[in-house]
Amino acid sequence: MIKRKLETCFSPALFEPEEHVDSIVVIIDILRASSAIVTAFENGASKIIPVADVKGAKDYKSRGYLVAAERDGFVLDFADFGNSPFNFTREKVEGKTIVYSTTNGTGIINLASGSYMTLIGSFLNIGAITRFLINQEKDVLLLCAGWKNKFNIEDTVCSGAIAEKLMSSNLYSTNCDSTKGAIDLWSLACNDLIGYIEKAAQRTRLRDKKLDECLEYCFTTDITDKIPVMKEGVLVGNIY
Amino acid sequence: MIKRKLETCFSPALFEPEEHVDSIVVIIDILRASSAIVTAFENGASKIIPVADVKGAKDYKSRGYLVAAERDGFVLDFADFGNSPFNFTREKVEGKTIVYSTTNGTGIINLASGSYMTLIGSFLNIGAITRFLINQEKDVLLLCAGWKNKFNIEDTVCSGAIAEKLMSSNLYSTNCDSTKGAIDLWSLACNDLIGYIEKAAQRTRLRDKKLDECLEYCFTTDITDKIPVMKEGVLVGNIY
Repeated sequence: MIKRKLETCFSPALFEPEEHVDSIVVIIDILRASSAIVTAFENGASKIIPVADVKGAKDYKSRGYLVAAERDGFVLDFADFGNSPFNFTREKVEGKTIVYSTTNGTGIINLASGSYMTLIGSFLNIGAITRFLINQEKDVLLLCAGWKNKFNIEDTVCSGAIAEKLMSSNLYSTNCDSTKGAIDLWSLACNDLIGYIEKAAQRTRLRDKKLDECLEYCFTTDITDKIPVMKEGVLVGNIY
Repeated sequence: MIKRKLETCFSPALFEPEEHVDSIVVIIDILRASSAIVTAFENGASKIIPVADVKGAKDYKSRGYLVAAERDGFVLDFADFGNSPFNFTREKVEGKTIVYSTTNGTGIINLASGSYMTLIGSFLNIGAITRFLINQEKDVLLLCAGWKNKFNIEDTVCSGAIAEKLMSSNLYSTNCDSTKGAIDLWSLACNDLIGYIEKAAQRTRLRDKKLDECLEYCFTTDITDKIPVMKEGVLVGNIY
Protein backbone atom coordinates (compact mmCIF):
# COMPACT_ATOMS: atom_id res chain seq x y z
CA MET A 1 0.00 0.00 0.00
CA ILE A 2 1.28 3.42 -0.92
CA LYS A 3 0.88 5.61 2.10
CA ARG A 4 -0.40 9.13 1.95
CA LYS A 5 2.13 11.89 2.57
CA LEU A 6 1.87 13.98 5.72
CA GLU A 7 3.71 17.30 5.96
CA THR A 8 3.69 20.28 8.30
CA CYS A 9 4.57 23.88 7.55
CA PHE A 10 5.42 26.25 10.43
CA SER A 11 4.84 29.56 8.66
CA PRO A 12 2.85 30.97 5.72
CA ALA A 13 6.21 32.34 4.50
CA LEU A 14 7.43 28.75 4.04
CA PHE A 15 4.28 27.52 2.30
CA GLU A 16 4.83 26.44 -1.29
CA PRO A 17 1.35 26.27 -2.88
CA GLU A 18 2.49 24.40 -5.99
CA GLU A 19 3.61 21.44 -3.83
CA HIS A 20 0.13 21.01 -2.40
CA VAL A 21 -2.35 21.42 -5.25
CA ASP A 22 -3.53 17.85 -4.71
CA SER A 23 -3.37 17.88 -0.87
CA ILE A 24 -5.86 18.65 1.85
CA VAL A 25 -4.48 21.70 3.68
CA VAL A 26 -5.51 22.15 7.32
CA ILE A 27 -4.99 25.72 8.54
CA ILE A 28 -4.20 26.03 12.24
CA ASP A 29 -4.32 29.38 14.04
CA ILE A 30 -5.21 28.45 17.61
CA LEU A 31 -4.96 31.93 19.19
CA ARG A 32 -7.43 32.82 17.89
CA ALA A 33 -8.66 32.72 14.27
CA SER A 34 -9.15 28.96 13.87
CA SER A 35 -10.85 28.71 17.26
CA ALA A 36 -13.13 31.65 16.45
CA ILE A 37 -14.13 30.33 13.01
CA VAL A 38 -14.91 26.86 14.34
CA THR A 39 -16.98 28.43 17.14
CA ALA A 40 -18.92 30.60 14.70
CA PHE A 41 -20.03 27.57 12.71
CA GLU A 42 -20.83 25.59 15.87
CA ASN A 43 -23.13 28.50 16.76
CA GLY A 44 -24.92 28.42 13.44
CA ALA A 45 -23.09 30.92 11.23
CA SER A 46 -24.02 30.44 7.58
CA LYS A 47 -20.80 31.54 5.84
CA ILE A 48 -17.56 33.34 6.63
CA ILE A 49 -15.90 35.53 4.03
CA PRO A 50 -12.17 35.82 4.80
CA VAL A 51 -10.83 39.25 3.84
CA ALA A 52 -7.11 39.92 4.19
CA ASP A 53 -7.04 43.73 4.06
CA VAL A 54 -8.75 46.33 6.24
CA LYS A 55 -10.16 48.28 3.31
CA GLY A 56 -11.92 45.19 1.95
CA ALA A 57 -13.49 44.51 5.35
CA LYS A 58 -14.65 48.13 5.60
CA ASP A 59 -16.28 47.93 2.15
CA TYR A 60 -18.27 44.89 3.26
CA LYS A 61 -19.35 46.71 6.43
CA SER A 62 -20.71 49.60 4.36
CA ARG A 63 -22.77 47.04 2.43
CA GLY A 64 -24.45 45.83 5.64
CA TYR A 65 -22.42 42.72 6.50
CA LEU A 66 -21.59 41.60 10.03
CA VAL A 67 -17.83 42.23 10.29
CA ALA A 68 -15.27 40.68 12.68
CA ALA A 69 -11.99 42.51 12.22
CA GLU A 70 -8.94 43.22 14.32
CA ARG A 71 -5.27 43.98 14.05
CA ASP A 72 -2.81 42.92 16.77
CA GLY A 73 -5.66 41.96 19.05
CA PHE A 74 -7.56 45.25 18.83
CA VAL A 75 -11.00 45.55 17.25
CA LEU A 76 -11.05 47.88 14.23
CA ASP A 77 -13.32 50.88 14.83
CA PHE A 78 -15.80 50.06 12.07
CA ALA A 79 -16.10 46.37 12.98
CA ASP A 80 -18.92 44.71 14.91
CA PHE A 81 -16.48 42.73 17.04
CA GLY A 82 -12.98 41.25 17.17
CA ASN A 83 -11.29 37.89 17.22
CA SER A 84 -12.28 36.28 20.50
CA PRO A 85 -14.25 33.06 19.96
CA PHE A 86 -16.56 34.33 22.72
CA ASN A 87 -17.80 37.08 20.37
CA PHE A 88 -19.24 34.54 17.96
CA THR A 89 -22.30 33.71 20.06
CA ARG A 90 -25.40 32.05 18.68
CA GLU A 91 -27.36 35.29 19.24
CA LYS A 92 -24.96 37.21 17.04
CA VAL A 93 -24.04 34.77 14.29
CA GLU A 94 -26.84 32.22 13.73
CA GLY A 95 -27.85 32.19 10.08
CA LYS A 96 -25.51 35.08 9.28
CA THR A 97 -22.71 35.62 6.77
CA ILE A 98 -19.70 37.04 8.62
CA VAL A 99 -16.85 38.98 7.05
CA TYR A 100 -13.65 38.16 8.92
CA SER A 101 -10.28 39.89 8.87
CA THR A 102 -7.45 39.39 11.39
CA THR A 103 -3.73 40.04 11.68
CA ASN A 104 -2.71 36.55 10.73
CA GLY A 105 -5.50 34.18 10.01
CA THR A 106 -7.35 35.37 6.95
CA GLY A 107 -4.44 36.02 4.58
CA ILE A 108 -3.29 32.45 5.02
CA ILE A 109 -6.74 31.05 4.22
CA ASN A 110 -6.64 32.75 0.84
CA LEU A 111 -3.01 31.69 0.34
CA ALA A 112 -4.02 28.03 0.62
CA SER A 113 -7.00 28.31 -1.69
CA GLY A 114 -5.23 26.58 -4.59
CA SER A 115 -5.05 23.26 -2.75
CA TYR A 116 -7.38 20.29 -3.32
CA MET A 117 -9.28 21.25 -0.16
CA THR A 118 -8.71 23.82 2.60
CA LEU A 119 -10.01 23.10 6.10
CA ILE A 120 -9.85 24.96 9.41
CA GLY A 121 -8.38 22.92 12.25
CA SER A 122 -8.24 23.60 15.98
CA PHE A 123 -8.36 21.74 19.25
CA LEU A 124 -12.11 22.41 19.33
CA ASN A 125 -12.73 20.16 16.31
CA ILE A 126 -9.59 18.00 16.39
CA GLY A 127 -11.40 14.67 16.59
CA ALA A 128 -13.70 15.48 13.68
CA ILE A 129 -10.80 16.76 11.57
CA THR A 130 -8.64 13.70 12.10
CA ARG A 131 -11.52 11.28 11.46
CA PHE A 132 -12.34 13.13 8.25
CA LEU A 133 -8.72 13.12 7.03
CA ILE A 134 -8.31 9.42 7.75
CA ASN A 135 -11.36 8.72 5.57
CA GLN A 136 -9.88 10.59 2.58
CA GLU A 137 -7.31 9.09 0.22
CA LYS A 138 -5.29 12.30 0.15
CA ASP A 139 -1.95 13.76 1.18
CA VAL A 140 -2.23 16.22 4.05
CA LEU A 141 -0.44 19.47 4.83
CA LEU A 142 -0.84 20.94 8.32
CA LEU A 143 -0.28 24.67 7.80
CA CYS A 144 0.44 26.65 10.96
CA ALA A 145 -0.43 30.33 10.79
CA GLY A 146 2.40 31.24 13.14
CA TRP A 147 2.78 34.88 14.16
CA LYS A 148 3.85 37.46 11.62
CA ASN A 149 5.49 34.70 9.60
CA LYS A 150 7.36 33.31 12.62
CA PHE A 151 7.05 29.83 14.13
CA ASN A 152 4.74 29.67 17.12
CA ILE A 153 4.26 27.13 19.89
CA GLU A 154 0.47 26.88 20.05
CA ASP A 155 -0.12 26.11 16.37
CA THR A 156 2.82 23.71 16.38
CA VAL A 157 1.52 21.61 19.28
CA CYS A 158 -1.91 21.39 17.65
CA SER A 159 -0.32 20.28 14.37
CA GLY A 160 1.66 17.74 16.40
CA ALA A 161 -1.51 16.44 18.04
CA ILE A 162 -3.21 15.97 14.65
CA ALA A 163 -0.06 14.46 13.13
CA GLU A 164 0.32 11.96 15.96
CA LYS A 165 -3.26 10.75 15.44
CA LEU A 166 -2.80 10.50 11.65
CA MET A 167 0.51 8.64 11.93
CA SER A 168 -0.94 6.16 14.40
CA SER A 169 -3.56 5.22 11.77
CA ASN A 170 -0.65 3.72 9.79
CA LEU A 171 -2.09 5.25 6.60
CA TYR A 172 0.44 8.08 6.34
CA SER A 173 4.18 8.35 5.94
CA THR A 174 6.26 11.43 6.58
CA ASN A 175 9.80 12.44 5.74
CA CYS A 176 9.13 15.92 7.04
CA ASP A 177 11.22 17.18 9.95
CA SER A 178 8.57 19.76 10.87
CA THR A 179 6.02 16.99 11.39
CA LYS A 180 8.41 15.01 13.55
CA GLY A 181 9.39 18.06 15.58
CA ALA A 182 5.74 18.99 16.07
CA ILE A 183 4.86 15.48 17.28
CA ASP A 184 7.75 15.65 19.76
CA LEU A 185 6.66 19.04 21.10
CA TRP A 186 3.11 17.70 21.42
CA SER A 187 4.51 14.79 23.46
CA LEU A 188 5.96 17.34 25.90
CA ALA A 189 2.78 19.44 25.97
CA CYS A 190 -0.02 16.89 26.01
CA ASN A 191 -0.11 16.07 29.71
CA ASP A 192 -0.49 19.71 30.75
CA LEU A 193 -1.40 21.70 27.68
CA ILE A 194 -2.41 24.92 29.44
CA GLY A 195 0.75 24.77 31.53
CA TYR A 196 2.93 24.19 28.46
CA ILE A 197 1.32 27.08 26.58
CA GLU A 198 2.46 29.46 29.34
CA LYS A 199 5.76 29.67 27.43
CA ALA A 200 4.15 30.81 24.17
CA ALA A 201 4.74 34.45 23.21
CA GLN A 202 1.13 34.83 22.05
CA ARG A 203 -0.08 33.68 25.47
CA THR A 204 1.89 36.60 27.00
CA ARG A 205 0.62 39.04 24.37
CA LEU A 206 -3.01 38.11 25.03
CA ARG A 207 -2.52 38.40 28.80
CA ASP A 208 -0.87 41.82 28.41
CA LYS A 209 -3.83 43.04 26.33
CA LYS A 210 -6.37 41.41 28.69
CA LEU A 211 -7.58 39.29 25.77
CA ASP A 212 -6.89 35.93 27.37
CA GLU A 213 -10.32 35.15 28.77
CA CYS A 214 -10.73 32.55 25.99
CA LEU A 215 -7.41 30.80 26.58
CA GLU A 216 -8.60 27.61 28.24
CA TYR A 217 -11.47 27.37 25.79
CA CYS A 218 -9.09 27.45 22.78
CA PHE A 219 -7.26 24.40 24.13
CA THR A 220 -10.40 22.39 24.84
CA THR A 221 -10.78 19.36 22.59
CA ASP A 222 -13.83 18.20 20.69
CA ILE A 223 -16.54 20.67 21.52
CA THR A 224 -17.82 20.34 17.96
CA ASP A 225 -17.81 18.15 14.85
CA LYS A 226 -17.93 21.14 12.51
CA ILE A 227 -15.16 21.20 9.92
CA PRO A 228 -15.03 24.60 8.21
CA VAL A 229 -14.09 24.25 4.55
CA MET A 230 -13.23 26.77 1.85
CA LYS A 231 -15.66 26.77 -1.09
CA GLU A 232 -15.24 29.31 -3.89
CA GLY A 233 -13.52 31.85 -1.68
CA VAL A 234 -15.93 31.49 1.23
CA LEU A 235 -15.83 29.29 4.34
CA VAL A 236 -18.82 27.10 5.06
CA GLY A 237 -19.40 25.12 8.21
CA ASN A 238 -19.29 21.58 6.98
CA ILE A 239 -17.72 19.53 4.25
CA TYR A 240 -20.80 17.61 3.27
CA MET B 1 20.14 44.72 34.39
CA ILE B 2 18.76 44.72 30.87
CA LYS B 3 19.19 41.26 29.48
CA ARG B 4 20.40 40.56 25.99
CA LYS B 5 17.84 39.24 23.53
CA LEU B 6 18.13 35.67 22.28
CA GLU B 7 16.24 34.60 19.16
CA THR B 8 16.24 31.59 16.85
CA CYS B 9 15.28 31.40 13.19
CA PHE B 10 14.45 28.01 11.64
CA SER B 11 14.93 28.93 7.98
CA PRO B 12 16.82 31.47 5.85
CA ALA B 13 13.41 32.25 4.29
CA LEU B 14 12.24 33.55 7.68
CA PHE B 15 15.37 35.60 8.39
CA GLU B 16 14.76 39.33 8.57
CA PRO B 17 18.20 40.97 8.25
CA GLU B 18 17.03 44.44 9.32
CA GLU B 19 16.01 43.05 12.75
CA HIS B 20 19.53 41.83 13.45
CA VAL B 21 21.94 44.54 12.27
CA ASP B 22 23.21 44.91 15.84
CA SER B 23 23.14 41.20 16.76
CA ILE B 24 25.67 38.42 16.61
CA VAL B 25 24.29 35.86 14.14
CA VAL B 26 25.38 32.25 14.57
CA ILE B 27 24.83 30.17 11.44
CA ILE B 28 24.11 26.50 12.06
CA ASP B 29 24.22 23.93 9.26
CA ILE B 30 25.20 20.71 11.01
CA LEU B 31 24.91 18.31 8.02
CA ARG B 32 27.33 19.42 6.79
CA ALA B 33 28.50 22.95 5.97
CA SER B 34 29.06 24.28 9.51
CA SER B 35 30.84 21.09 10.53
CA ALA B 36 33.04 21.19 7.43
CA ILE B 37 33.98 24.87 7.84
CA VAL B 38 34.87 24.46 11.50
CA THR B 39 36.97 21.38 10.62
CA ALA B 40 38.80 23.25 7.87
CA PHE B 41 39.92 25.95 10.29
CA GLU B 42 40.86 23.40 12.95
CA ASN B 43 43.10 21.86 10.29
CA GLY B 44 44.82 25.13 9.51
CA ALA B 45 42.89 26.62 6.58
CA SER B 46 43.71 30.28 6.14
CA LYS B 47 40.44 31.64 4.72
CA ILE B 48 37.18 30.37 3.26
CA ILE B 49 35.41 32.32 0.54
CA PRO B 50 31.70 31.43 0.55
CA VAL B 51 30.25 31.50 -2.95
CA ALA B 52 26.54 30.92 -3.42
CA ASP B 53 26.38 30.09 -7.14
CA VAL B 54 28.08 27.38 -9.16
CA LYS B 55 29.37 29.79 -11.82
CA GLY B 56 31.16 31.88 -9.21
CA ALA B 57 32.83 28.78 -7.76
CA LYS B 58 33.93 27.69 -11.23
CA ASP B 59 35.46 31.10 -11.93
CA TYR B 60 37.56 30.81 -8.77
CA LYS B 61 38.68 27.31 -9.79
CA SER B 62 39.92 28.62 -13.14
CA ARG B 63 42.00 31.15 -11.19
CA GLY B 64 43.76 28.40 -9.27
CA TYR B 65 41.83 28.28 -5.99
CA LEU B 66 41.12 25.12 -4.02
CA VAL B 67 37.35 24.63 -4.46
CA ALA B 68 34.90 22.66 -2.31
CA ALA B 69 31.57 22.59 -4.11
CA GLU B 70 28.55 20.34 -4.19
CA ARG B 71 24.85 20.31 -4.89
CA ASP B 72 22.48 17.91 -3.15
CA GLY B 73 25.41 16.00 -1.73
CA PHE B 74 27.25 15.43 -5.01
CA VAL B 75 30.63 16.95 -5.78
CA LEU B 76 30.55 19.30 -8.78
CA ASP B 77 32.77 18.04 -11.59
CA PHE B 78 35.19 20.96 -11.56
CA ALA B 79 35.62 20.99 -7.76
CA ASP B 80 38.52 19.57 -5.75
CA PHE B 81 36.17 17.96 -3.25
CA GLY B 82 32.72 18.12 -1.68
CA ASN B 83 31.10 18.87 1.61
CA SER B 84 32.21 16.11 3.96
CA PRO B 85 34.21 17.47 6.90
CA PHE B 86 36.58 14.52 6.28
CA ASN B 87 37.69 16.14 3.02
CA PHE B 88 39.12 19.11 4.84
CA THR B 89 42.25 17.36 6.09
CA ARG B 90 45.36 19.17 7.27
CA GLU B 91 47.26 17.87 4.22
CA LYS B 92 44.74 19.47 1.88
CA VAL B 93 43.83 22.72 3.59
CA GLU B 94 46.65 23.95 5.84
CA GLY B 95 47.58 27.50 4.93
CA LYS B 96 45.15 27.50 2.01
CA THR B 97 42.29 29.77 0.94
CA ILE B 98 39.29 27.58 0.10
CA VAL B 99 36.36 28.55 -2.09
CA TYR B 100 33.23 26.90 -0.74
CA SER B 101 29.83 26.44 -2.34
CA THR B 102 27.09 24.09 -1.14
CA THR B 103 23.37 23.56 -1.62
CA ASN B 104 22.40 25.32 1.55
CA GLY B 105 25.22 26.67 3.59
CA THR B 106 26.96 29.39 1.65
CA GLY B 107 24.00 31.45 0.51
CA ILE B 108 22.91 31.88 4.10
CA ILE B 109 26.37 33.08 5.17
CA ASN B 110 26.16 35.92 2.69
CA LEU B 111 22.54 36.61 3.69
CA ALA B 112 23.62 37.27 7.29
CA SER B 113 26.55 39.48 6.36
CA GLY B 114 24.72 42.68 7.37
CA SER B 115 24.65 41.72 11.04
CA TYR B 116 27.04 43.04 13.72
CA MET B 117 28.98 39.78 13.51
CA THR B 118 28.43 36.47 11.71
CA LEU B 119 29.84 33.27 13.24
CA ILE B 120 29.71 29.61 12.26
CA GLY B 121 28.36 27.33 14.97
CA SER B 122 28.29 23.55 15.24
CA PHE B 123 28.53 20.83 17.86
CA LEU B 124 32.26 20.67 17.12
CA ASN B 125 32.85 24.16 18.53
CA ILE B 126 29.76 24.54 20.73
CA GLY B 127 31.64 25.21 23.97
CA ALA B 128 33.85 27.88 22.40
CA ILE B 129 30.87 29.55 20.71
CA THR B 130 28.79 29.75 23.87
CA ARG B 131 31.70 31.02 26.00
CA PHE B 132 32.41 33.71 23.38
CA LEU B 133 28.76 34.81 23.18
CA ILE B 134 28.45 35.02 26.96
CA ASN B 135 31.44 37.36 27.01
CA GLN B 136 29.86 39.77 24.50
CA GLU B 137 27.26 42.38 25.44
CA LYS B 138 25.20 41.62 22.36
CA ASP B 139 21.85 40.20 21.29
CA VAL B 140 22.15 36.82 19.60
CA LEU B 141 20.31 35.23 16.69
CA LEU B 142 20.75 31.50 16.11
CA LEU B 143 20.13 31.06 12.38
CA CYS B 144 19.43 27.50 11.25
CA ALA B 145 20.24 26.77 7.62
CA GLY B 146 17.44 24.21 7.41
CA TRP B 147 17.02 22.34 4.14
CA LYS B 148 15.84 24.13 1.02
CA ASN B 149 14.20 26.74 3.25
CA LYS B 150 12.43 24.11 5.38
CA PHE B 151 12.84 23.51 9.11
CA ASN B 152 15.23 20.69 9.95
CA ILE B 153 15.83 18.65 13.08
CA GLU B 154 19.62 18.62 13.27
CA ASP B 155 20.13 22.40 13.10
CA THR B 156 17.24 22.92 15.50
CA VAL B 157 18.63 20.65 18.21
CA CYS B 158 22.04 22.34 17.94
CA SER B 159 20.40 25.78 18.25
CA GLY B 160 18.51 24.40 21.26
CA ALA B 161 21.75 23.19 22.85
CA ILE B 162 23.37 26.62 22.42
CA ALA B 163 20.21 28.40 23.58
CA GLU B 164 19.96 26.28 26.72
CA LYS B 165 23.54 27.16 27.67
CA LEU B 166 23.00 30.87 27.00
CA MET B 167 19.72 31.00 28.94
CA SER B 168 21.30 29.25 31.93
CA SER B 169 23.87 32.08 32.12
CA ASN B 170 20.95 34.30 33.16
CA LEU B 171 22.28 37.04 30.85
CA TYR B 172 19.68 36.55 28.10
CA SER B 173 15.93 36.79 27.83
CA THR B 174 13.80 35.39 25.08
CA ASN B 175 10.22 35.89 23.98
CA CYS B 176 10.86 33.78 20.89
CA ASP B 177 8.81 30.61 20.44
CA SER B 178 11.44 29.14 18.10
CA THR B 179 14.04 29.37 20.85
CA LYS B 180 11.75 27.71 23.37
CA GLY B 181 10.75 24.98 20.92
CA ALA B 182 14.41 24.34 20.06
CA ILE B 183 15.37 24.04 23.74
CA ASP B 184 12.54 21.56 24.26
CA LEU B 185 13.59 19.44 21.28
CA TRP B 186 17.18 19.51 22.56
CA SER B 187 15.89 18.24 25.93
CA LEU B 188 14.45 15.21 24.08
CA ALA B 189 17.59 14.68 21.99
CA CYS B 190 20.44 15.32 24.40
CA ASN B 191 20.64 11.93 26.12
CA ASP B 192 20.99 10.04 22.83
CA LEU B 193 21.78 12.55 20.12
CA ILE B 194 22.77 10.07 17.41
CA GLY B 195 19.66 8.02 18.15
CA TYR B 196 17.42 11.11 18.01
CA ILE B 197 18.93 12.24 14.70
CA GLU B 198 17.81 8.96 13.10
CA LYS B 199 14.45 10.70 12.50
CA ALA B 200 15.96 13.60 10.55
CA ALA B 201 15.28 13.63 6.81
CA GLN B 202 18.85 14.72 6.07
CA ARG B 203 20.17 11.71 7.99
CA THR B 204 18.18 9.48 5.60
CA ARG B 205 19.34 11.46 2.55
CA LEU B 206 23.01 11.10 3.53
CA ARG B 207 22.59 7.38 4.18
CA ASP B 208 20.89 6.87 0.81
CA LYS B 209 23.77 8.65 -0.94
CA LYS B 210 26.38 6.82 1.14
CA LEU B 211 27.57 10.17 2.46
CA ASP B 212 26.96 9.43 6.13
CA GLU B 213 30.45 8.35 7.15
CA CYS B 214 30.86 11.69 8.97
CA LEU B 215 27.58 11.48 10.90
CA GLU B 216 28.87 10.68 14.37
CA TYR B 217 31.68 13.18 13.94
CA CYS B 218 29.23 16.02 13.15
CA PHE B 219 27.49 15.44 16.49
CA THR B 220 30.68 15.30 18.55
CA THR B 221 31.07 18.23 20.92
CA ASP B 222 34.11 20.41 21.48
CA ILE B 223 36.80 19.05 19.23
CA THR B 224 37.99 22.61 18.64
CA ASP B 225 37.95 26.16 20.00
CA LYS B 226 37.94 27.69 16.52
CA ILE B 227 35.12 30.13 15.89
CA PRO B 228 34.88 30.95 12.18
CA VAL B 229 33.85 34.56 11.65
CA MET B 230 32.88 36.56 8.56
CA LYS B 231 35.23 39.45 7.79
CA GLU B 232 34.70 41.52 4.63
CA GLY B 233 32.99 38.72 2.76
CA VAL B 234 35.46 36.04 3.78
CA LEU B 235 35.47 33.55 6.67
CA VAL B 236 38.53 33.46 8.89
CA GLY B 237 39.25 30.90 11.57
CA ASN B 238 39.17 32.97 14.69
CA ILE B 239 37.59 36.09 16.04
CA TYR B 240 40.70 37.56 17.56
